[in-house]
Amino acid sequence: MRAIIKASAEPGLTVTDVPEPECGANDVLIRVHHAGVCGTDVHIAEWDEWAQGRIRPPVVVGHEFAGEVVELGAGVGDQFHIGQLVTAEGHIVCGHCRRCRTGNGHICTNTSIIGVDRDGAFTEYLAMPASNVMPLGNIPTTVGSIMDAIGNAFHTVLTADIPGNTVLVAGCGPIGCFAVGVARAAGATKVIATDINPFRLDLAGKMGADVLIDPSSEDVVKRVFDETDGEGADVVCEMSGHPTALAQSFQAARLGGQVQLLGIPKEPVTINFSTDIIFKGLTVYGVIGRRMYDTWLQMQTFLSSGLFDPMPAVTHTFPLEDIDKALEAIHSGNAGKVILEIGSK
Amino acid sequence: MRAIIKASAEPGLTVTDVPEPECGANDVLIRVHHAGVCGTDVHIAEWDEWAQGRIRPPVVVGHEFAGEVVELGAGVGDQFHIGQLVTAEGHIVCGHCRRCRTGNGHICTNTSIIGVDRDGAFTEYLAMPASNVMPLGNIPTTVGSIMDAIGNAFHTVLTADIPGNTVLVAGCGPIGCFAVGVARAAGATKVIATDINPFRLDLAGKMGADVLIDPSSEDVVKRVFDETDGEGADVVCEMSGHPTALAQSFQAARLGGQVQLLGIPKEPVTINFSTDIIFKGLTVYGVIGRRMYDTWLQMQTFLSSGLFDPMPAVTHTFPLEDIDKALEAIHSGNAGKVILEIGSK
Amino acid sequence: MRAIIKASAEPGLTVTDVPEPECGANDVLIRVHHAGVCGTDVHIAEWDEWAQGRIRPPVVVGHEFAGEVVELGAGVGDQFHIGQLVTAEGHIVCGHCRRCRTGNGHICTNTSIIGVDRDGAFTEYLAMPASNVMPLGNIPTTVGSIMDAIGNAFHTVLTADIPGNTVLVAGCGPIGCFAVGVARAAGATKVIATDINPFRLDLAGKMGADVLIDPSSEDVVKRVFDETDGEGADVVCEMSGHPTALAQSFQAARLGGQVQLLGIPKEPVTINFSTDIIFKGLTVYGVIGRRMYDTWLQMQTFLSSGLFDPMPAVTHTFPLEDIDKALEAIHSGNAGKVILEIGSK
Amino acid sequence: MRAIIKASAEPGLTVTDVPEPECGANDVLIRVHHAGVCGTDVHIAEWDEWAQGRIRPPVVVGHEFAGEVVELGAGVGDQFHIGQLVTAEGHIVCGHCRRCRTGNGHICTNTSIIGVDRDGAFTEYLAMPASNVMPLGNIPTTVGSIMDAIGNAFHTVLTADIPGNTVLVAGCGPIGCFAVGVARAAGATKVIATDINPFRLDLAGKMGADVLIDPSSEDVVKRVFDETDGEGADVVCEMSGHPTALAQSFQAARLGGQVQLLGIPKEPVTINFSTDIIFKGLTVYGVIGRRMYDTWLQMQTFLSSGLFDPMPAVTHTFPLEDIDKALEAIHSGNAGKVILEIGSK
Repeated sequence: MRAIIKASAEPGLTVTDVPEPECGANDVLIRVHHAGVCGTDVHIAEWDEWAQGRIRPPVVVGHEFAGEVVELGAGVGDQFHIGQLVTAEGHIVCGHCRRCRTGNGHICTNTSIIGVDRDGAFTEYLAMPASNVMPLGNIPTTVGSIMDAIGNAFHTVLTADIPGNTVLVAGCGPIGCFAVGVARAAGATKVIATDINPFRLDLAGKMGADVLIDPSSEDVVKRVFDETDGEGADVVCEMSGHPTALAQSFQAARLGGQVQLLGIPKEPVTINFSTDIIFKGLTVYGVIGRRMYDTWLQMQTFLSSGLFDPMPAVTHTFPLEDIDKALEAIHSGNAGKVILEIGSK
Repeated sequence: MRAIIKASAEPGLTVTDVPEPECGANDVLIRVHHAGVCGTDVHIAEWDEWAQGRIRPPVVVGHEFAGEVVELGAGVGDQFHIGQLVTAEGHIVCGHCRRCRTGNGHICTNTSIIGVDRDGAFTEYLAMPASNVMPLGNIPTTVGSIMDAIGNAFHTVLTADIPGNTVLVAGCGPIGCFAVGVARAAGATKVIATDINPFRLDLAGKMGADVLIDPSSEDVVKRVFDETDGEGADVVCEMSGHPTALAQSFQAARLGGQVQLLGIPKEPVTINFSTDIIFKGLTVYGVIGRRMYDTWLQMQTFLSSGLFDPMPAVTHTFPLEDIDKALEAIHSGNAGKVILEIGSK
Repeated sequence: MRAIIKASAEPGLTVTDVPEPECGANDVLIRVHHAGVCGTDVHIAEWDEWAQGRIRPPVVVGHEFAGEVVELGAGVGDQFHIGQLVTAEGHIVCGHCRRCRTGNGHICTNTSIIGVDRDGAFTEYLAMPASNVMPLGNIPTTVGSIMDAIGNAFHTVLTADIPGNTVLVAGCGPIGCFAVGVARAAGATKVIATDINPFRLDLAGKMGADVLIDPSSEDVVKRVFDETDGEGADVVCEMSGHPTALAQSFQAARLGGQVQLLGIPKEPVTINFSTDIIFKGLTVYGVIGRRMYDTWLQMQTFLSSGLFDPMPAVTHTFPLEDIDKALEAIHSGNAGKVILEIGSK
Repeated sequence: MRAIIKASAEPGLTVTDVPEPECGANDVLIRVHHAGVCGTDVHIAEWDEWAQGRIRPPVVVGHEFAGEVVELGAGVGDQFHIGQLVTAEGHIVCGHCRRCRTGNGHICTNTSIIGVDRDGAFTEYLAMPASNVMPLGNIPTTVGSIMDAIGNAFHTVLTADIPGNTVLVAGCGPIGCFAVGVARAAGATKVIATDINPFRLDLAGKMGADVLIDPSSEDVVKRVFDETDGEGADVVCEMSGHPTALAQSFQAARLGGQVQLLGIPKEPVTINFSTDIIFKGLTVYGVIGRRMYDTWLQMQTFLSSGLFDPMPAVTHTFPLEDIDKALEAIHSGNAGKVILEIGSK
């Protein structure tokens, strides 16, 4: 079958043929229809420091996907049926550590990520543990293929108090754009979005942001206070990982507010903990992955009901063979979410 | 000044002249523009058992209102200004018991309710403790005059988890209709409403309910399970106080769901606690009044932003002199919320 | 191997020989050291209405136990080792429904209970799914054998706010006695216990209750208010299922308090929802089983640290062959928790 | 009356005579029995940068105290009586901002602190707004005089989940020592304390810490993991404000743990947010003051019941005239909490 692989320890991705995977006793074999391209895939392609430390080539890349069930392992039972449209959580966890046993699999230390630590989803067939598989119901595979990324946004936003609150989303890459939409759907009364890239800021507007701020030309903290009667944002979602945005996130939050941190700073960041966190009585939450499986079930209801629609932030679709064009689109900055069309009919 | 009073210990309300109130040191004197008519006012007019036990005539009735500030007590300071449009929490609490000191004034045992325990709002001028007064900002006094009732709905709905959940509202009197709208605005993915009165059920639809059920012609519990893939409602808001609806509320909730009880049953109710509450792992919350003042601040943001609009459930407006027509409209059943126009220009 | 079974559809239990169980691929085979006798076992022995509707003889009874690992299924991996002392959650759940996937396995509708729906623990060897097995560490098998029951108490108490609060435990059977100890260990400032049986009330005192009330000779609600400066109990744990105790539990709770319901009323109960739940702003929680596996992990730390000791409430130990004496001890009322000694060396 | 004042804008405190305060209409006049000396008083004495920016001499210093009611303002009513023993929250807040109206007075921006922004408690008589006054009941004024500081510890510890958890207290000044005792009383199964000062570490042991770590001679993070089966601390209370301790607090927390920040770093601190907060899924809470008045009510029950006793951490008592000796004791490092004896009989 065709697959996009990291073939060796150097920059670049290769489209090639690989053997089809076996379907283990507790696995579901899935024919991939669509797959989402993530910043992680870009890091792997570019072979940056993180990738060099983590990836052991050769490996099929890609961890966001959706498709149809084509085979069920002997131990799977009747949870799924052949032909069913599904997606899957890409973090394969141990299931028996303290964290997994208490619904905190997102912080399992025995996590293996598809497309990173083992073969992934940019290919035609993929075997996933049944416990990771999620039925799509009426959700199309285009949307299903990016639910891993959408789930980061749901985890970030819905672990804060949203109804009736003002939400600042700092950084409008695809997950930031999704966060805007989630906040909107979950009853935020005002959504403020920031990005230095006008294309992305425009996408945030299309996802429902009420206020768009370009930090390169405007004082974010001042504007947020102006927009909130001098109170500050009730909830701040830091999606960029940029040190300046991180500092501003604490500053733009209201006294007693919540700051959700999803963006990953590349370096340690210097913060005035006294004035910007402690004296403000803030609550700060580090967001990693998706809650298994609260976040997925929340996504299913929001997507199935139509209350949340990610498609305005999906800007490009390419066939699997054109992965380089997909990476190029992301690189240009003038892209939202990018999807690969693999096996859809 | 003109006022609607309970003149003596017998059925009926009287429109008459009463002296203007004094503005105490910690009070705000308010010229009433609009006032909301509540079921409580109907009980007082009808002089039912509850009213006979509680009301000491003569008393000016009415506890829902909005108007403009016309005088400030010496101790009030600069929180408010003359001409400002305001409404007020109608429960005057002691401020220094354990409950008041921990933000739980809604269950203060030293509560005095305007229009019930002391002179109320169906009149031209009213002196309220400054601590009870809430600025309206851009909210009109028509809406402001019913925020006390809207607040019951906000308290009921927003103390449960709403985003992404299915909410059943059992009973669609005015507060039930408002609850439908609040659930909708706060990100419920499906709102199901019940009432035996088709007029009220129609109002619930106008407030945004997705599914309307008439319990007199349909099995509520069965329909709720049908609408939720056999899971049951995540959140049930019992707004009717009817014993059958109360029992159904527990039955229609999903395992692990939340049941919010606002409707006041007139008699003790027999419930199968084992099958309907304990084995289901339910959480049940008794809702009384409005949280002081979280609920009010939530209302202000939802109303100011336009995310929640109560007006589809407001069906009648009468001048103060026509209180009997207002009561008659409520009695007919073919009414949503009824408002008195008193001093608006 | 020797086993206590419900042999046929009539009262009584039989000690007999049964075949040893197979250890499935995902199972752990456990040699039982100790087992706890529960009220459920009494119902099965007595063949009451519930038992007649649920049990399909022949079945090995018993669901509380601890022992040592003697065999590991091929798919279990290295989570456990031969000779390790373990206990297990007796509710075997599906693992893939909405409830199981969100850490709410205690309300899984596909639950199969050992000793009830399938062969249980009053025997020498038992095969349990690895996902149900809990390591004992430094906890002895006497204590381990009753962790299922202790877990009911932890679930009841620790899902309420305990530190600094007054806790009323209504009903001091074994689980009630454990609840007293949990409340004490978790920082309750006053623990009040009630039971009409002086033997049980005495055990509650040994477990740490500060105040002991016999409802047959004293007004429980009045006494609780006297003990709490007229405020009422912050948290009430209803462990009896008795209709009077249930009503008193709501009445004895303070305004805004929490009522945890574990005792199972045999019949529907009539409650004044208006005065006793709604106007009091109570939160009521239906407790079923143990949270999987938060409750178990909490138990492990409390038991391992010695902060909670259940042994004062364990009054009798019998060999497996003497199950009738064990049931008789429970019947007499003059017993706390009763343990069977099966395979301990 | 005698008073300790900051007389002018230079180092030092002065014991002198000042006029007795007036008792305003909403005030309670209190004769001070005991007062607690706080690090803030040291900063004011030393006239450091913070003090120079904030204090406007002359001002009576001191904000922790307890005493007896000697006069009640006309508007106070019957909440208090002459001769009653009381203490008071030292933060005087506006009472009508969003924060105050929702039980978040601890982050009111209109806060005036006694002994800092207005005359304080190191004197014989003090007038406090009635809303700030707390009855002591059976708590002695020695303990009552340091409840402001104890309250910081309660706020820090009890806003985290304590029962059954391992708690690390980083920094064992007086508030750190109190935090050790609160964690112990609230059901922590293991309390680990750190300080470079052996005197303070010894006090932490007397307050109930199970494990004492001197960071100058031992790797704190390694030791915490050793003490917790490699999991890390469930809850970390950072009480020192030291940059190294702050970084270690995040590192020593378990995945998904809680970090409570009370210590005030003097400078911005550089933290690896990616590895130490985000990938760990931590929740971080900035602690300021005491929750009004949840924290106070929690303290009252813990102190009244005897479950928490601060006295092992109180090492010195001086008469008011010996304030210099009190400051010297604090300076030496070989002191826990230091109390002034002022008007006690």
